[in-house]
Amino acid sequence: MTQQSLLEQLVEALRCMPGIGRKSAQRIAHQLLQRNRDAAKHLSIILADAMDNIGHCERCRTYTENSLCHLCENKKRDESTLCIVENPSDVDSIEEANYRGRYFVLLGHLSPLDGIGPDDIGLNELPKLLDNEELKEVILATSSTVEGEATAHFISEMVKVRGKAVSRIAHGVPMGGELEYANSLTIAHAIDGRKAI
Amino acid sequence: MTQQSLLEQLVEALRCMPGIGRKSAQRIAHQLLQRNRDAAKHLSIILADAMDNIGHCERCRTYTENSLCHLCENKKRDESTLCIVENPSDVDSIEEANYRGRYFVLLGHLSPLDGIGPDDIGLNELPKLLDNEELKEVILATSSTVEGEATAHFISEMVKVRGKAVSRIAHGVPMGGELEYANSLTIAHAIDGRKAI
Repeated sequence: MTQQSLLEQLVEALRCMPGIGRKSAQRIAHQLLQRNRDAAKHLSIILADAMDNIGHCERCRTYTENSLCHLCENKKRDESTLCIVENPSDVDSIEEANYRGRYFVLLGHLSPLDGIGPDDIGLNELPKLLDNEELKEVILATSSTVEGEATAHFISEMVKVRGKAVSRIAHGVPMGGELEYANSLTIAHAIDGRKAI
Repeated sequence: MTQQSLLEQLVEALRCMPGIGRKSAQRIAHQLLQRNRDAAKHLSIILADAMDNIGHCERCRTYTENSLCHLCENKKRDESTLCIVENPSDVDSIEEANYRGRYFVLLGHLSPLDGIGPDDIGLNELPKLLDNEELKEVILATSSTVEGEATAHFISEMVKVRGKAVSRIAHGVPMGGELEYANSLTIAHAIDGRKAI
């Protein structure tokens, strides 16, 4: 076998990214070589820097290059609520919705079949946050998948034994959404969780 | 404005790749951090190496880190045919179809509206290949888009004045394809280019 050309090595290496197959990797490699070499070199530097230096926030477990993330470092955040999410990107989504409390990021969900237990999603670090005197309520914002619901249930038990309030984010028809496009399970949830007006 | 976190810089940098928007870049960054740091570091090294060292083959213009690509260096290739394609990936596709002649890669197509003229797609380097004594036929394998057809027409004129044969790859219904799924233009081409059997 002849040695792989540098271009072939690049195409192979690009495939480490999720959702990038052989054809996409080829297209990306050609495009970068043809139009965007400077940006690609910049990406190479940032990529190495990020992989070497980004770790987890000691408090909420999200990604950060410091010991505490910028949200945990902020002393003005509301200490009385703690929102638990699956992914760091969920933090950004909830921030955009004007939530101003604390976070805890699981970086996954319980999945016994894949061998992912409570310790793998950081639940051994959760008690020290739950025992915080100022904390009044835990909001569970895990996905509404089977695994997300199971994870939410597991955590709700941990919270209840400590006598704190625990809630689950509402599921229902999205704002601006038409009934026509919502699936029946969502509509059933929306009816079930109806509010008097 | 606060300084961007390293993660945000990574997400921004990933967007230099075609087809990668903000959401995909976030997903890629999280996935690499969580599961694949070694592969990402490897990618960073190859990426820098490729951007610094991959240039164009002196003869056929495809990408290579050497002065000649491995196909042009191969003395056993058939010198009598020259296949002209738009992109380096087209060379791979044609290689898979068992073509064993020479190539010339345009790295684009004529597009006067975008300011892309003959010299931008290397047509100033084509005459020295066309004047090769051994060359008998030029096969035009540019895309069957308006720009691809115009480029093919332009090159065919360059070849004809030199008295060499010039041909265009056949357009028609794909092998294994059903008529039902072919568009009418393709079927019209297929009927137009019918062969006696």
